[in-house]
Amino acid sequence: MKNTFGNNISITLFGESHGRSVGCVLDGVPAGIPVDYDNIIRLLALRRPEGAISTARSEKDEFLIHSGVFNGFTVGTPICITIPNNDTRSSDYEDITRLARPSHADYTAHIKYRGYEDPHGGGHFSGRITAALVAAGGIILPALNRKGIKIGTHIASCAGVKDREFDNYENDIDSLADLSFAVLDNDKANEMQSNILKAKEDLDSVGGILETAIIGLESGVGEPWFDTLEGMLSHALFSVPAVKGVEFGAGFKFAEMRGSSANDGFYTESGCVHTFTNNSGGINGGISNGMPIVLRCAVRPTPTIGKEQNTIDYVNLENAKISAKGRHDPCIVHRARIVVDCVCALVIADALAGKHGSDWLAL
Amino acid sequence: MKNTFGNNISITLFGESHGRSVGCVLDGVPAGIPVDYDNIIRLLALRRPEGAISTARSEKDEFLIHSGVFNGFTVGTPICITIPNNDTRSSDYEDITRLARPSHADYTAHIKYRGYEDPHGGGHFSGRITAALVAAGGIILPALNRKGIKIGTHIASCAGVKDREFDNYENDIDSLADLSFAVLDNDKANEMQSNILKAKEDLDSVGGILETAIIGLESGVGEPWFDTLEGMLSHALFSVPAVKGVEFGAGFKFAEMRGSSANDGFYTESGCVHTFTNNSGGINGGISNGMPIVLRCAVRPTPTIGKEQNTIDYVNLENAKISAKGRHDPCIVHRARIVVDCVCALVIADALAGKHGSDWLAL
Amino acid sequence: MKNTFGNNISITLFGESHGRSVGCVLDGVPAGIPVDYDNIIRLLALRRPEGAISTARSEKDEFLIHSGVFNGFTVGTPICITIPNNDTRSSDYEDITRLARPSHADYTAHIKYRGYEDPHGGGHFSGRITAALVAAGGIILPALNRKGIKIGTHIASCAGVKDREFDNYENDIDSLADLSFAVLDNDKANEMQSNILKAKEDLDSVGGILETAIIGLESGVGEPWFDTLEGMLSHALFSVPAVKGVEFGAGFKFAEMRGSSANDGFYTESGCVHTFTNNSGGINGGISNGMPIVLRCAVRPTPTIGKEQNTIDYVNLENAKISAKGRHDPCIVHRARIVVDCVCALVIADALAGKHGSDWLAL
Amino acid sequence: MKNTFGNNISITLFGESHGRSVGCVLDGVPAGIPVDYDNIIRLLALRRPEGAISTARSEKDEFLIHSGVFNGFTVGTPICITIPNNDTRSSDYEDITRLARPSHADYTAHIKYRGYEDPHGGGHFSGRITAALVAAGGIILPALNRKGIKIGTHIASCAGVKDREFDNYENDIDSLADLSFAVLDNDKANEMQSNILKAKEDLDSVGGILETAIIGLESGVGEPWFDTLEGMLSHALFSVPAVKGVEFGAGFKFAEMRGSSANDGFYTESGCVHTFTNNSGGINGGISNGMPIVLRCAVRPTPTIGKEQNTIDYVNLENAKISAKGRHDPCIVHRARIVVDCVCALVIADALAGKHGSDWLAL
Repeated sequence: MKNTFGNNISITLFGESHGRSVGCVLDGVPAGIPVDYDNIIRLLALRRPEGAISTARSEKDEFLIHSGVFNGFTVGTPICITIPNNDTRSSDYEDITRLARPSHADYTAHIKYRGYEDPHGGGHFSGRITAALVAAGGIILPALNRKGIKIGTHIASCAGVKDREFDNYENDIDSLADLSFAVLDNDKANEMQSNILKAKEDLDSVGGILETAIIGLESGVGEPWFDTLEGMLSHALFSVPAVKGVEFGAGFKFAEMRGSSANDGFYTESGCVHTFTNNSGGINGGISNGMPIVLRCAVRPTPTIGKEQNTIDYVNLENAKISAKGRHDPCIVHRARIVVDCVCALVIADALAGKHGSDWLAL
Repeated sequence: MKNTFGNNISITLFGESHGRSVGCVLDGVPAGIPVDYDNIIRLLALRRPEGAISTARSEKDEFLIHSGVFNGFTVGTPICITIPNNDTRSSDYEDITRLARPSHADYTAHIKYRGYEDPHGGGHFSGRITAALVAAGGIILPALNRKGIKIGTHIASCAGVKDREFDNYENDIDSLADLSFAVLDNDKANEMQSNILKAKEDLDSVGGILETAIIGLESGVGEPWFDTLEGMLSHALFSVPAVKGVEFGAGFKFAEMRGSSANDGFYTESGCVHTFTNNSGGINGGISNGMPIVLRCAVRPTPTIGKEQNTIDYVNLENAKISAKGRHDPCIVHRARIVVDCVCALVIADALAGKHGSDWLAL
Repeated sequence: MKNTFGNNISITLFGESHGRSVGCVLDGVPAGIPVDYDNIIRLLALRRPEGAISTARSEKDEFLIHSGVFNGFTVGTPICITIPNNDTRSSDYEDITRLARPSHADYTAHIKYRGYEDPHGGGHFSGRITAALVAAGGIILPALNRKGIKIGTHIASCAGVKDREFDNYENDIDSLADLSFAVLDNDKANEMQSNILKAKEDLDSVGGILETAIIGLESGVGEPWFDTLEGMLSHALFSVPAVKGVEFGAGFKFAEMRGSSANDGFYTESGCVHTFTNNSGGINGGISNGMPIVLRCAVRPTPTIGKEQNTIDYVNLENAKISAKGRHDPCIVHRARIVVDCVCALVIADALAGKHGSDWLAL
Repeated sequence: MKNTFGNNISITLFGESHGRSVGCVLDGVPAGIPVDYDNIIRLLALRRPEGAISTARSEKDEFLIHSGVFNGFTVGTPICITIPNNDTRSSDYEDITRLARPSHADYTAHIKYRGYEDPHGGGHFSGRITAALVAAGGIILPALNRKGIKIGTHIASCAGVKDREFDNYENDIDSLADLSFAVLDNDKANEMQSNILKAKEDLDSVGGILETAIIGLESGVGEPWFDTLEGMLSHALFSVPAVKGVEFGAGFKFAEMRGSSANDGFYTESGCVHTFTNNSGGINGGISNGMPIVLRCAVRPTPTIGKEQNTIDYVNLENAKISAKGRHDPCIVHRARIVVDCVCALVIADALAGKHGSDWLAL
């Protein structure tokens, strides 16, 4: 089950960038979850390229729900969603069918699929497939909200500019909800975007860090081996194209710390348990401790750039030069954030379905 | 299948720190793999605490193979290995059965298992369970070696001291093989150990970063969604106690880079394909590209420390103070490195079994 | 992963009888398998109702392949196929939304999905969903053929009439290929159909037994625990609506036999191993022995009948009477046979992919 | 995950007949389930050979619980149980290491494991491995009992003699509990045993049919595709050595029935829903309908018999004769019944854990 993820609530992805449709089958969602089309449309819009800082390819993302929804509610059976591909200009990519974009999946796909791969627009490796993740998230995220769980991601750093840290989690998550460029400090958003445009002018691209908070998750969720919350989340998050690192709480900063400052002392107040600090990112021993889950994803600069680069013609096995001509993004960090939210929602919903049973999310 | 990992070659872990045995069932290993008991003993020794920088608890790690091995070879059926627990001094932990060690799993285990958890020595959350991973690795690692795949991990940083980077991967991996404190630059090892001892004197602990290289892995291994090499490796690695971050290639450094310097240009030489740089850590689009797989794990400081910390008595739900008295490690970075090697070996062997078939590893 | 089956080659089903589409995602199929649309159309036609002995509902089964196929070959990524529902007359089923058809899934679906189920035409429980299995089989069956594996199913018994037994497996399988009513002895076909029509006139329905042979499968395929060939095949076959029994080789007849006559003595000839008899149905210890796999599925009479039956109104929880008015089949045995072929093909292809690796089927 | 079964509660089996131990890892069992050693001993005794109608091999089945149990309760972590092999007389089997017992797994194991298999006593294919299933059932069965679910299996037919049918399910199940030869009509037990002894005198063996009833299971358990109750149960049951057919309710008798007599009309009484008949065996559309689950397993005659049979020497690939000399059972039907109970218990517990959540069984 290669393109499927999840145990009790699972998602199967399919589609190629320039094929008929991308889409997903979302399975294990209990009957009785309201499906709000407008909310799915709203989330898909947050992923859609927009303005000068994104690719000029514009898909309307009109999605079709083929199954699993009836009279505005889930019926408990698998939900298949397809999103047709319309605005495909394969000619832009003609070179690409022979020249491997450095650090993109052109070459590895060619090896893996022995020459049968669909090379147009990155085929199955295109970021476009994440639209299907977002559509699924459009069903799961509101269901989690109704259970008091909120998920929000901001651009913690991009193009050399750092956003402020999470302060009041709930307010911050709410403030991010409808931003097409999700930054907590608006001034930083402007700086980042200006740096992205500079990179674009240089026919180059930039990367960044996305930071996610999940609040309202009860303690006791996750498994010691191997389905730790960290393991499940990272497994799914590394599928988001360009994510090359995932850390929880203090993450790599732990390397410089001592236990006495790294440890999150517990205290109890009015019968609730909290920690003074949250270096653990809300997870001890793979299991939620009731504090906010905090994680960060490193997003590499988009590999497709206009600048000339060394590469190979992988059909003739010759050295070559490549300068991408297709429409491409100088930065995908801001578009990836809603994908990260949706991936986290799927993982958390799956873990809770295992703990509380298959119908719990709808009750 | 909570405590099981892997699709075609899988491992199931079991055991509590102070129970009868810890152990594993290793399944899907093809018939005909030689099982070298001495090599398993050698690897277990690398994980065992030793000297002043580790816990004083000393287990002989005498393991029993109950099944799956006959006449020195695997027979193709599940291999159950148990490692009896002998040197258990539960009295040291008596307080711990009521006081939650900050950032340890005491509290989350108590919530998850509703008071039925075995609290002695961390129960199922103890690092001791990793001995079973190492025993399994003692069968898989040499099998991968015979296929030309080598895996090595060094302490890239510990207690504020950085090791040198990998230079010649093969030589470096070979040089690490028998080190109980696996550092490439011997001077740095002394510095690190001296800093660990300082932390110990302060009743404190330190963390670090483990860096792993996997060489000899063919290109084309991994899946786009969701079983990317990064996803599979990180899923398993986050089970190793204290790992709180996993990054591949340039990882979090990508955030500061532009595409033109981040991208790994391809070139071909004598019919082989290489990249000039390896910021991708050998993985493009979730699939190996033939370059060394390079990944780093952030290892948090051991949570159990002698220093007094704020915590709660989770039975009476009262605020309290805790100072650990049990034998514990001021640092587990050096002991975790062989665990990381073994976990990587299991993931890679599983991916190759899927690609080449269930018998391939033995052929 | 509830609606997904298979380890290395897997299928996910979706769809409701009167929803937008039924369909599947077929994953794990290697790149380079030719996809012959005409063959898929041919198989779908074998499942389609036809003539007086089937329902009058007629779907053209025009299918769409959304992904995973490019230039006439699989590309190695998930293949999503949708089959739109056109000829839906939900009004026929209006009563059914409140009255449980005896032995159908109306009541259990209502309980399981807590009133949110889509009741039209049986919803997700409709035999119509099997069209998606057949479409998937239309890709897998020819791929197995190219590997020398043939699968054929005949109506061993129906409406009280028995077909002759398999004689020459290969010839018999070939002769069944294009039959819309797959019987080895044509006279028996006429008798069966005449009995089906009698049942129809009586507003009743009939059942039968489907017998399947799989030839050309190498020895050594299957696992001892739990993925025996019998276990994997039966798991999938019991999903085919109306299948209530699965037996291999002599099956339930074994109960009356002694070991000396039940055992299949081995002999060797020209370096090949055979058995004198095949009471084992080609499987020993869960693993293929090189002889034809022979299995039988008991197919219950279609539950939806015109005759008046006792039932309940499950909304008001009152006793009631029901006489089905919707278009329905007096017999589905003949339509199910191609579904059984396709299900067997998926299971065998999955087992072989595990044994020989993910690309084997295409090589 | 070849030797593992189950989604939320799962079991992994290991062991060879003459290896150190057979055993299992039972995972997903919630914390807080009482573990009654005496009950496990009692169930193991029901599986143990006894008297003239069974093999003379006698194992005391002293089991060790290595993990997952503390202070008499499960702790929520994986439960590893080993059962040491003591009474092994490999010399009896010396011929067998070269001569394939007809219809046993000797030959298929040799092909599958390429000559590395452990041939003593059938290795991993020995019925002895089922002792581990029974030990696991000894934990799960009483837990289900506490939830009002009872499971009982009787020998519906053996050696040509038929037992009476289930009459009052609850009383009948209770009456079977401690029988070493589980038949509802005691006279029939004597007839069966006498026929088994006749077969034994003839150096032959006999088969039979086991019929199982599961009562107290709520309606709404099971999935439409592919994890139907029938599919899950049969998948696991076909792992029980010698099971070659599984049917539910009327099973293969459906072939001769018409819908009007096959259908189970519903009625409601005092707010509860029942059916007048139970030809469906308590399952509609793969989902429990609240009536007793009734299934039958066809058990083939033991393949190992003293009579001379044709076979091959599979090492030299020569035709040969074989007459088994090892201790073996003229009939295993009576010993398999407790195994069937335990397998059913595991499947039902797993399905309920998915529906009601991971802790439900303990609450």
